[in-house]
Amino acid sequence: MEERARKLTRSDVEQGETELQELREEVAETTKEIIKLVAKRIELAKKIGEVKTRESLPIDNERVEDALLEEVLRECGQLGLDQQLGTKILSTLLAESKKIQRMQGRAKPRPLITPMVMMAKATEIEKKGRKLIRLDVGEPDFHPPKAVLDAVSDALFSYKTYYTVGRGIPELITALKNYLAKRYNYHEAAENQLIVTPGGRFAVYSALATVASEGDSVVVIEPNWPAYKEGLEYIGARAITVRTTIEEGWEPSPESVKAAIRPNTKAIVLSYPSNPTGKIMRQAAFKEIVGIADDLGLTVISDEIYNDYAYKPCPTILENLPRKYILTSSFSKGWSMTGFRVGYSLAPAETSSKMLKLLGLMITCVPDFIQRGAAKALECETEVSHNSKVMKERIDSTSAELAKIEALELHKPEGAIYAFPQAKDPAFDSAAFAMELLEKKGVTISPGTGFGDYPRCFRISLGQPQEVLTAGVRKIGELLS
Amino acid sequence: MEERARKLTRSDVEQGETELQELREEVAETTKEIIKLVAKRIELAKKIGEVKTRESLPIDNERVEDALLEEVLRECGQLGLDQQLGTKILSTLLAESKKIQRMQGRAKPRPLITPMVMMAKATEIEKKGRKLIRLDVGEPDFHPPKAVLDAVSDALFSYKTYYTVGRGIPELITALKNYLAKRYNYHEAAENQLIVTPGGRFAVYSALATVASEGDSVVVIEPNWPAYKEGLEYIGARAITVRTTIEEGWEPSPESVKAAIRPNTKAIVLSYPSNPTGKIMRQAAFKEIVGIADDLGLTVISDEIYNDYAYKPCPTILENLPRKYILTSSFSKGWSMTGFRVGYSLAPAETSSKMLKLLGLMITCVPDFIQRGAAKALECETEVSHNSKVMKERIDSTSAELAKIEALELHKPEGAIYAFPQAKDPAFDSAAFAMELLEKKGVTISPGTGFGDYPRCFRISLGQPQEVLTAGVRKIGELLS
Repeated sequence: MEERARKLTRSDVEQGETELQELREEVAETTKEIIKLVAKRIELAKKIGEVKTRESLPIDNERVEDALLEEVLRECGQLGLDQQLGTKILSTLLAESKKIQRMQGRAKPRPLITPMVMMAKATEIEKKGRKLIRLDVGEPDFHPPKAVLDAVSDALFSYKTYYTVGRGIPELITALKNYLAKRYNYHEAAENQLIVTPGGRFAVYSALATVASEGDSVVVIEPNWPAYKEGLEYIGARAITVRTTIEEGWEPSPESVKAAIRPNTKAIVLSYPSNPTGKIMRQAAFKEIVGIADDLGLTVISDEIYNDYAYKPCPTILENLPRKYILTSSFSKGWSMTGFRVGYSLAPAETSSKMLKLLGLMITCVPDFIQRGAAKALECETEVSHNSKVMKERIDSTSAELAKIEALELHKPEGAIYAFPQAKDPAFDSAAFAMELLEKKGVTISPGTGFGDYPRCFRISLGQPQEVLTAGVRKIGELLS
Repeated sequence: MEERARKLTRSDVEQGETELQELREEVAETTKEIIKLVAKRIELAKKIGEVKTRESLPIDNERVEDALLEEVLRECGQLGLDQQLGTKILSTLLAESKKIQRMQGRAKPRPLITPMVMMAKATEIEKKGRKLIRLDVGEPDFHPPKAVLDAVSDALFSYKTYYTVGRGIPELITALKNYLAKRYNYHEAAENQLIVTPGGRFAVYSALATVASEGDSVVVIEPNWPAYKEGLEYIGARAITVRTTIEEGWEPSPESVKAAIRPNTKAIVLSYPSNPTGKIMRQAAFKEIVGIADDLGLTVISDEIYNDYAYKPCPTILENLPRKYILTSSFSKGWSMTGFRVGYSLAPAETSSKMLKLLGLMITCVPDFIQRGAAKALECETEVSHNSKVMKERIDSTSAELAKIEALELHKPEGAIYAFPQAKDPAFDSAAFAMELLEKKGVTISPGTGFGDYPRCFRISLGQPQEVLTAGVRKIGELLS
């Protein structure tokens, strides 16, 4: 820049200040007008709420919301306004309207009995000394591999007890790269694409938070692990659910996934084998859904935490890689290392770097000595095979046991560590049933409402020895007959 | 309700639908008007940006923002609109305006060299085989207590390797209660007020996220640990900084804290002994600030992670309890257990329950075997005293060594594990200096800009043996002379 141009005279500055002052006054006026219109909109929402209450209509109306979203996006397009800003403002307005309508309405939202709520309640009862049959907690009962315990202990006594870089120690990153190469024949994982996380849960949260912002939406397939929806709710993004049914064998159609996508959709979450159904999606359908996402530039988040418990060929994102993807996984299930809180994610470097920032902000890093244990776990193939084999036997036996209960139907799990039967009675309330079962029979299960709109279903975790599972299922049968 | 009133005739329903339809159309129109005004406001922001760029004015203007906030709140008051909604919308608009102005402006925001950035760079160099003197990492070099290692290892081999309740195992919660009673004579901690967190960092994040939402503000005293500001930025809340200076001995005045409070302020963060200055606030000033917060119904977040390294009486929130408070702490520093990632928080039950929800969403729980180690740590008073004593010696020796450097001044640390000298040269750029020091002398420090607007300062971590500290400080002196 020229010297002359940079030197402003006093009167230039004064003129600038006057200009700025005038613009700022206009900004303030416009802001106040916006607030006035927001207030008007809230008043309208209240009136709508009154009508809804009077006529017992539901507060949520996805069709109306979709239409509004499209109008807002069209308006943004015409005005040259950032669409992300438009969706965020709309989302803020919708959330406020719903909050108000919910306060007006007589009907309270049904409190969700999630697996974690059930676990807390059961722990409470156990503390009082009562022995329960715990079929609620989603963790295998196997011991973690002995070699892992040794590795963690050795690391502890060699003082691997200080901060590590956020991403994870190079030894574990390298071990993960080698593991993905060996296990999936996937040789493309670069160091800056992998992150070691405190459990699969944090991998999932940071994946969702990285791809979706407030006002965005993400497609999830129900029934599913509640953490996807909870994470999206925390972010202020909407979970668009693709419902699957036991009648269709819990199989989502690519068409229904495609139909669920909205203009503000940023990602699709897939997780097979599925928690809670044990479903494994057909390879072709998985490929097709990934293709749909890729065509639209969406991210596929594939949560493959149960991949060691798969009893038919299970699709993986690594064999169907779209441009945008996040693989999340964990040592919790295959190696039975739930209590170690260690998982990992794989994503393109740029996405991974955003996820890493979140981990750095909230956690710093996973304990060094635990990371050493995780690296050792990747060598423990024998234990993983054993766990997988035992789980297969449990699925077979428990499915056979459940088949004896006239009141239930089951799509036999093809993987994971759960059974998700459905009561034949259309009026069945699994939340009430779960409470009755806990009180009368001392058995805990997870009601289906924790996994989506499935009041007739409940989840049985197979993380117990077969005799416990059989005893538990028989008690369920007794209460149902 | 009467039976008759609940039965709606067909024409009632139709009338309701028409009414709903009309209201919805009005909502859509109002929404579009809002979007139009938002676009207008963004255009005005662009014009302001042009003037700012032309006249090299800063993008941020707190005074203007404050005035706008007050106008919005006044408007909300008049219209009966939820003020939280108003502040959130204003915050969205301000953020978008700034984003646009930043893109227009020629001046990029100076990239912050935080301790974590420095650590990553140093680790990178060390990987190439070069030996560095690491004075950047904020962790003690002491070994964790042997009894803790034994307890963790024993727990591992007794298979304390499964999920625990989110809050933490009862043994550790009880141990923490007893510890607070013994150490602070604080007997009021209830079980539902305590949470075991994966490090003090998560305790701090969940505290901030629980008390502040998007559009809110929180008062922080600078210089400080960057995690407070980073957390607030992630939440979308504004950090209002109270600047302290070396000339005032890093002591904030209660008046300046009071003056910083805005109508949307939700909390004040205090942390003494201070990272990076080692300052310990006067008891009376602490009491006064807590009183100011309490009068206004604000939350005091007191991060007391360095409380075991205090060399004059150090105020604690437990002896000055306001109605709303969150104490965050950790096993990282006193016990030198950084790599265990375990900390805790204490807050009123309702606040604690919100924080717990966040922990459940993102983390599930802290590893059981680590919690056993933490419980054992609370018995290890000898080790903590030893660590504290050694750190005092390092503060004395390092301060003496720094005093020999003509170009620097220092307010001698009264606690914590750092020294935070300031260059006498008003034009000193500690970020450039840190890079030069790393390259020419192989010594890492943390530039002052990582802790606030302190380009003349830098942080030396005392987490190294004295001979290393002395060698490092002498190299600093060499480069400065």
